[in-house]
Amino acid sequence: MPQQSPLDVPEGDPFGPHNLPYGVFTTPAEPERRRVGVRIGGYVLDAGAVAVALGSPYAGLLAQGSLNPLLAAGRTAWRDVRRALTAWVTDPGHRGTVEPHLLPLDEVTLHLPYEVADYVDFYASEHHATNVGRIFRPDGDALTPNWKHLPIGYHGRSGTIVVSGTDVVRPSGQRKAPTDPAPVFGPSVKLDIEAEVGFVVGAPSQMGRPVALGDFEEHVFGLFLLNDWSARDIQAWEYVPLGPFLGKSFATSVSAWVTPLEALDAARVAPPARDFPLLPYLDDSEVDRPGGFDLRITVSINGQEVARPPFASMYWTAAQQLAHMTVNGASLRTGDVFGSGTVSGPEVDERGSLLELTWNGRDAVELADGKRTFLEDGDTVTLTAWAPGADGTRVGLGEVTGRITAA
Amino acid sequence: MPQQSPLDVPEGDPFGPHNLPYGVFTTPAEPERRRVGVRIGGYVLDAGAVAVALGSPYAGLLAQGSLNPLLAAGRTAWRDVRRALTAWVTDPGHRGTVEPHLLPLDEVTLHLPYEVADYVDFYASEHHATNVGRIFRPDGDALTPNWKHLPIGYHGRSGTIVVSGTDVVRPSGQRKAPTDPAPVFGPSVKLDIEAEVGFVVGAPSQMGRPVALGDFEEHVFGLFLLNDWSARDIQAWEYVPLGPFLGKSFATSVSAWVTPLEALDAARVAPPARDFPLLPYLDDSEVDRPGGFDLRITVSINGQEVARPPFASMYWTAAQQLAHMTVNGASLRTGDVFGSGTVSGPEVDERGSLLELTWNGRDAVELADGKRTFLEDGDTVTLTAWAPGADGTRVGLGEVTGRITAA
Repeated sequence: MPQQSPLDVPEGDPFGPHNLPYGVFTTPAEPERRRVGVRIGGYVLDAGAVAVALGSPYAGLLAQGSLNPLLAAGRTAWRDVRRALTAWVTDPGHRGTVEPHLLPLDEVTLHLPYEVADYVDFYASEHHATNVGRIFRPDGDALTPNWKHLPIGYHGRSGTIVVSGTDVVRPSGQRKAPTDPAPVFGPSVKLDIEAEVGFVVGAPSQMGRPVALGDFEEHVFGLFLLNDWSARDIQAWEYVPLGPFLGKSFATSVSAWVTPLEALDAARVAPPARDFPLLPYLDDSEVDRPGGFDLRITVSINGQEVARPPFASMYWTAAQQLAHMTVNGASLRTGDVFGSGTVSGPEVDERGSLLELTWNGRDAVELADGKRTFLEDGDTVTLTAWAPGADGTRVGLGEVTGRITAA
Repeated sequence: MPQQSPLDVPEGDPFGPHNLPYGVFTTPAEPERRRVGVRIGGYVLDAGAVAVALGSPYAGLLAQGSLNPLLAAGRTAWRDVRRALTAWVTDPGHRGTVEPHLLPLDEVTLHLPYEVADYVDFYASEHHATNVGRIFRPDGDALTPNWKHLPIGYHGRSGTIVVSGTDVVRPSGQRKAPTDPAPVFGPSVKLDIEAEVGFVVGAPSQMGRPVALGDFEEHVFGLFLLNDWSARDIQAWEYVPLGPFLGKSFATSVSAWVTPLEALDAARVAPPARDFPLLPYLDDSEVDRPGGFDLRITVSINGQEVARPPFASMYWTAAQQLAHMTVNGASLRTGDVFGSGTVSGPEVDERGSLLELTWNGRDAVELADGKRTFLEDGDTVTLTAWAPGADGTRVGLGEVTGRITAA
């Protein structure tokens, strides 16, 4: 019997060898040397170092300071690298080589794992869009006429995407209550979260060549939790007619861990039934595998759970979003990120934003340390999630967390 | 008398030594080796090669394949490099070194001169916004209530910014006329232009630190003509409530030449009088130098002039746009691009889009080869511009041109 190893991940651990999400880390000894890591249990594997030590053909993709080279390598490489990693962490013959390259998670610093190219944010939850419509346009239809015909999206700011754990400074900006004679300037008083799932593009596409629904897995490498921080007061005053801008662009937090799509094969589910026939480029009624992902998200503020948004309830799938985003000929680049939009389920405690949970401040959420309508300075928001894996396992998603600091 | 030299630029040439815009080029002999060039008359100067030949301290900034290192170097470096370049092209003592590194413009290929980080598009012409409001919202106020309180903007797609000369494939997408029972899919039938001026950020800023109005020139390196191609039918159906997306993201063309702000000192003009008092972070009534630029733009289709939009008429200045874009703490990166929004003056023939020139297709524009409401396949659109320089000179802006190809 070999002695206890970090590779002996307890059964039921959501970060066992069936998961193997990717990240980028540094150590205190070498704070400038970023390295690709793979999470296994409570450890991070220095994947590049192992690849070099084993003379692996994937050293060129893994002995890097960012995931971008691996992302750009395409689906066959993703599959082959994952097979190799799985062998390294499960094959007893590799233990002697692998174990020296395992570092406890709490001894490393995690970084943004890819260089973000373009960032698009969607609006794909029917429950969320309906709630927002009811709150902001109480006299009109909750959903705009286009909502069930296309996945509504808009571009966000790539340069302010930050890794989980980064403090978020409360943004200042203009706001104007309907009763104010003119806008006022100051720190946002309606700072909110949006619990989302992000997707990162690996293989690029050519300008002028739409990506078909069925080619989703050729281009998208993996997914992660994303918190699209939102200043509702700034957003409400600015967003007509060209959409959200400063209400969103101050920070978007993403998990340090990217879960490869392959780890989520058992979590694929059919999206909800569609209420209208879809145009052919969005019609997923005949696709080989369902486009939804059964991710169970939990939103916590200061450690206290406030909502459990179910990603399986999203009306529009990520594959539909990708097909829509490129149908006009827009190209994809390695590192393009797109967010699902706030994940909200049909139930009150499944809503992925405080805007919805408090109905724009009307109904406070009760926390142990007091009531909340929107976020207060010092609040820490954490999103976690898991998905069903094969054979009753759970696939954990890396958390995304951030603390609000004063303006 | 020395014999005739490419450096003997005719008096009155808008690309004389008072201008010196920057670009990136390759030659047929070395199509993979991108080099920083400076335009002088009908020639491009291989600036990096001259810097190396002269042992210049700026060789590290100029002997590069993109302008990004120079952009990142900051304002003092921009000024010093410009002084050096001016000496190289005007000092007879340098002629022997400089002349071998001049290439006729028609013998080089020009490329996108910087790596674009984020792209933001504004909506800063009161005349344009008023026209659009009247066309699309005839029953409401032409301007939304926020318009005169903040420069409205939104993020665009960085990955589809292309250099002048790149063909633009007609995009396909969803559109729905009010009388249609459901959206239809197909090539855009309302393909349009937007004549704009773009600005590129050089020196980055830190997240959480707004850039004040007065620090505009510390961060912005230069400007250029920009054509924000727009599919009006796709845009009209998709843009409520989150703004333009696929109607814009298929292509944005920029000039191959970036004019440094220093070349435009004589073109600074005060913006129009403001109708409402501005919040302090946007209030430019007391700034040291006026924020407007007197750029005279010409829009041509297939060589025939259709409009002359005056950039001096813009309500919001680029400095105000930069201050607004960062007031929420959003950081700047080297290569961030922001566009002014369509430039339209008060007169009918000063409108910078076909949407306005034809009043959404009602009044066709007469061209030699037929009438146009929107663009037809094969049409070539070209924007040119000049600005007043010192002592009666003209500063030319590099053109931006693009041809529509069939979907």
